[in-house]
Amino acid sequence: MTSAAPAAPPSSRSALAREKLMAAAERLYAEHGFANVSIRMIGEAAGQRNKSAVQYHFTTRDELIQAILTRHAAAIERLRAPMVAALDALGEVSPRERISCIIVPTIEHHIELGTPSWYGRFLAQALVEPSLREYAIRTQLQMPSLRRLEELRRGPDRDPELLAQNAAMIRQLIVHMTAELEADLAGGRADPATAERSWRRLGENLITAVCGLSSALVGDR
Amino acid sequence: MTSAAPAAPPSSRSALAREKLMAAAERLYAEHGFANVSIRMIGEAAGQRNKSAVQYHFTTRDELIQAILTRHAAAIERLRAPMVAALDALGEVSPRERISCIIVPTIEHHIELGTPSWYGRFLAQALVEPSLREYAIRTQLQMPSLRRLEELRRGPDRDPELLAQNAAMIRQLIVHMTAELEADLAGGRADPATAERSWRRLGENLITAVCGLSSALVGDR
Repeated sequence: MTSAAPAAPPSSRSALAREKLMAAAERLYAEHGFANVSIRMIGEAAGQRNKSAVQYHFTTRDELIQAILTRHAAAIERLRAPMVAALDALGEVSPRERISCIIVPTIEHHIELGTPSWYGRFLAQALVEPSLREYAIRTQLQMPSLRRLEELRRGPDRDPELLAQNAAMIRQLIVHMTAELEADLAGGRADPATAERSWRRLGENLITAVCGLSSALVGDR
Repeated sequence: MTSAAPAAPPSSRSALAREKLMAAAERLYAEHGFANVSIRMIGEAAGQRNKSAVQYHFTTRDELIQAILTRHAAAIERLRAPMVAALDALGEVSPRERISCIIVPTIEHHIELGTPSWYGRFLAQALVEPSLREYAIRTQLQMPSLRRLEELRRGPDRDPELLAQNAAMIRQLIVHMTAELEADLAGGRADPATAERSWRRLGENLITAVCGLSSALVGDR
């Protein structure tokens, strides 16, 4: 990232302003909720003098939010792609290995973000907001590594509707349980000093829970 | 509910206005999101001429939302209390019976609400909104029937933190999967003509999934 030195070319200054707006938006939305944050507040928190900074750089609130979602999805994809490639090379994949590949990259991304982070609470809100829900789901499902993991699923053919419900349950658990730990860490209900351990424990518990759930619901064993 | 006839005493007219405001708020929030609905829009949709109708009847937006949450929680409690009493009389309670008692009353409440309904999407948003989250969780957990079900849990003593995480996972699955079916029914992605069957199928799948999840995570068998 280029610094905001006066000599920076306009494109770099513009990229920096976008970064600042995205960081401010994510934090404000996570802490106060989508309903309680105006795009003007985001511009101010990002140190932008122009009152229309969000409109200038992102056109609309939804496009700003989508840019944040896309960036995190890409970061998680960078963590998941090598894990899936390694599984792929093995040939034989157990349900637990496949489920670990869904969950671990999200957990590792949260650990990389540090404490406090805001992405978890931000994503949870985007997934229940009518105008953003479909985009947020699609951004996650379209990742090539997740699509490849779906192809690696073994076992008998199963009811597509049931498989879709199983996938939705896994998504809800990952999104909302990580948002909850993030909120607990930010609010001091979980100790930030041992954040990494808490994240990995949540990851292990999610893997165990999702394995049990999928085994019961769609016979993934 | 008293009709709005001119002769109605003020207290009845006031109760009717509150009803209308709650119904309008629930619908608008579910369809457009907390961030895209002003309290003035709610007053207008409820047919209130006074621009401060929400403030007059509920003081703040959060108190309006809390009133809606409390009313639904009470309706679900009315469905769950006799189920838990029947289990209590049996003496012996299997995990599946206990888990059914958590899930079935919510499903039956959604069926009673008809199609389209708005409560599911409304609750999902309240549970991820920072200023409402704790109230929304507390409203659900404080129900006597849920507390009694917790006491009926059998088996060895388990790590309280793990039990809390298990309970949180169950809550996330119920809230967000019912919100998703409600959105699918309202948006025509699921057929409203067979709504009741879809609700019961989701209920069965949630019971199976939660049994598998809890068995794997905390050894509920």
